[in-house]
Amino acid sequence: MDNFKLWNKISHQILNEVDEVVNPLIGDKKSGKTVKMGADGTPTKLIDLIAEEKVVEILEGVNRSLILVSEEIGQIKIGEGNPEVVFVVDPLDGTNNAIKNIPAYGISLAIADIQNQNESMNINDIKMGYVKNFATGDIYEAQKGNGAKLNGENIQSSSKTDITQASMGAYIYRADMEKVDKLCKMIRRMRILGSVAIELCYVADGTYDAFLDIRGNLRIVDVSAAKLIIEEAGGLVSDENNHQLNGNLNVLERTSIIASGNHEIHKELIKIIGGK
Amino acid sequence: MDNFKLWNKISHQILNEVDEVVNPLIGDKKSGKTVKMGADGTPTKLIDLIAEEKVVEILEGVNRSLILVSEEIGQIKIGEGNPEVVFVVDPLDGTNNAIKNIPAYGISLAIADIQNQNESMNINDIKMGYVKNFATGDIYEAQKGNGAKLNGENIQSSSKTDITQASMGAYIYRADMEKVDKLCKMIRRMRILGSVAIELCYVADGTYDAFLDIRGNLRIVDVSAAKLIIEEAGGLVSDENNHQLNGNLNVLERTSIIASGNHEIHKELIKIIGGK
Repeated sequence: MDNFKLWNKISHQILNEVDEVVNPLIGDKKSGKTVKMGADGTPTKLIDLIAEEKVVEILEGVNRSLILVSEEIGQIKIGEGNPEVVFVVDPLDGTNNAIKNIPAYGISLAIADIQNQNESMNINDIKMGYVKNFATGDIYEAQKGNGAKLNGENIQSSSKTDITQASMGAYIYRADMEKVDKLCKMIRRMRILGSVAIELCYVADGTYDAFLDIRGNLRIVDVSAAKLIIEEAGGLVSDENNHQLNGNLNVLERTSIIASGNHEIHKELIKIIGGK
Repeated sequence: MDNFKLWNKISHQILNEVDEVVNPLIGDKKSGKTVKMGADGTPTKLIDLIAEEKVVEILEGVNRSLILVSEEIGQIKIGEGNPEVVFVVDPLDGTNNAIKNIPAYGISLAIADIQNQNESMNINDIKMGYVKNFATGDIYEAQKGNGAKLNGENIQSSSKTDITQASMGAYIYRADMEKVDKLCKMIRRMRILGSVAIELCYVADGTYDAFLDIRGNLRIVDVSAAKLIIEEAGGLVSDENNHQLNGNLNVLERTSIIASGNHEIHKELIKIIGGK
């Protein structure tokens, strides 16, 4: 990817400066005030807006041409001329946790480079991915073809294949309970921390053996970075029918997701929930 | 309660020194090695043992007579003569999170004073309760009749009554899915962080509107401190049939639990899961 070093430097600047600007608002009810409706059709909280404004401010200062896709703002072009890259950002994943000081919230940032100005971009064009857990300071990152890292150290997904011994993140509430009942009965440990980006990264580093959200309303924008990080760590990501995610990089695109440390547990999960 | 100041000082010493001794082991796979079978019939991990040894060491240094009830060791008497109090301790709640560096794990410590040496003590005899989240440093505490505090500030449980707008912790995996299906469909936000003591304290300070684990295998020892903290914060704790918890203070006693910020949501929850 062209200008990898530049975009990498800017990405880290965004991870750290959004963290700083959000930090004083953690656990403060006022940061949960709805300030407008976001471009994705969900309410924008004050803390989301402040996080996103910092992202925009940094990207506007870069003096390059790019497209920003982000939850509240939708899609904007920054800079003159043909855009070089698309930044796909969820400035604050786990907003509700941040407001309540439950320690799982952070930023998700993914970058696709634009080869052909006329083609629409999708999640498989992502070349760099970053997730920072603001509550712990942990930074997950991956560059396509170069593996995945947690705080600079290489990570690898889980090789565990037995569901009855597995730990997984699973958003089973408000889901089709018929599909998840069997899984709920089998799984060794289930977690729902409330930050999908961070929990997907837990699949990348083996903290979770798998992750599932089959409600069909996960934003492509929110999983773009983590998908690359998981795949670069040796894991798998698909929709609930084991098809690859093909969502376009815009804030309205939604999907189901199953992520796993290895092929065997992935196949098993699809079977258990009745996917095709 | 006699000697409140002394026991309070010792309790805080335990919270902080166990935190210190556990800290270097967080996220280290070796700390998850099974070293023996605990008195409660579950495997003792290295990190559990180290945490409990620190509790024993501190209590042996106090030069008072007391009983310690704790997961791995079972029940021991410390000091000479008639014991004054019972310490009911889970030295490390959320062991699996601690080993994997998921930021929700800590200590639970409750104290009952012994009025009559011949009577067996139960959870309703608890007079002081402490929970420290080691990942965040937050300390929840309560003294019977004196309210509950988080980091020295008074806390109050939630007044939210509408389940469809509520956030709750709910251990619904490996449960009777017939009982929880309806709840899963109704609830606004569900969390499973993997540390019951901390999540029960989230009911005390209104982070959660309610909490439920109806699998019937929660240890009385693990919920003793949080029960007092919730009740002192204005919340309610019962079993799944709305009976008060009556478990004896020993490591084998197990229960179901429903905890809520207020009466209305509590009643509603019992109804939804089909309790009597």
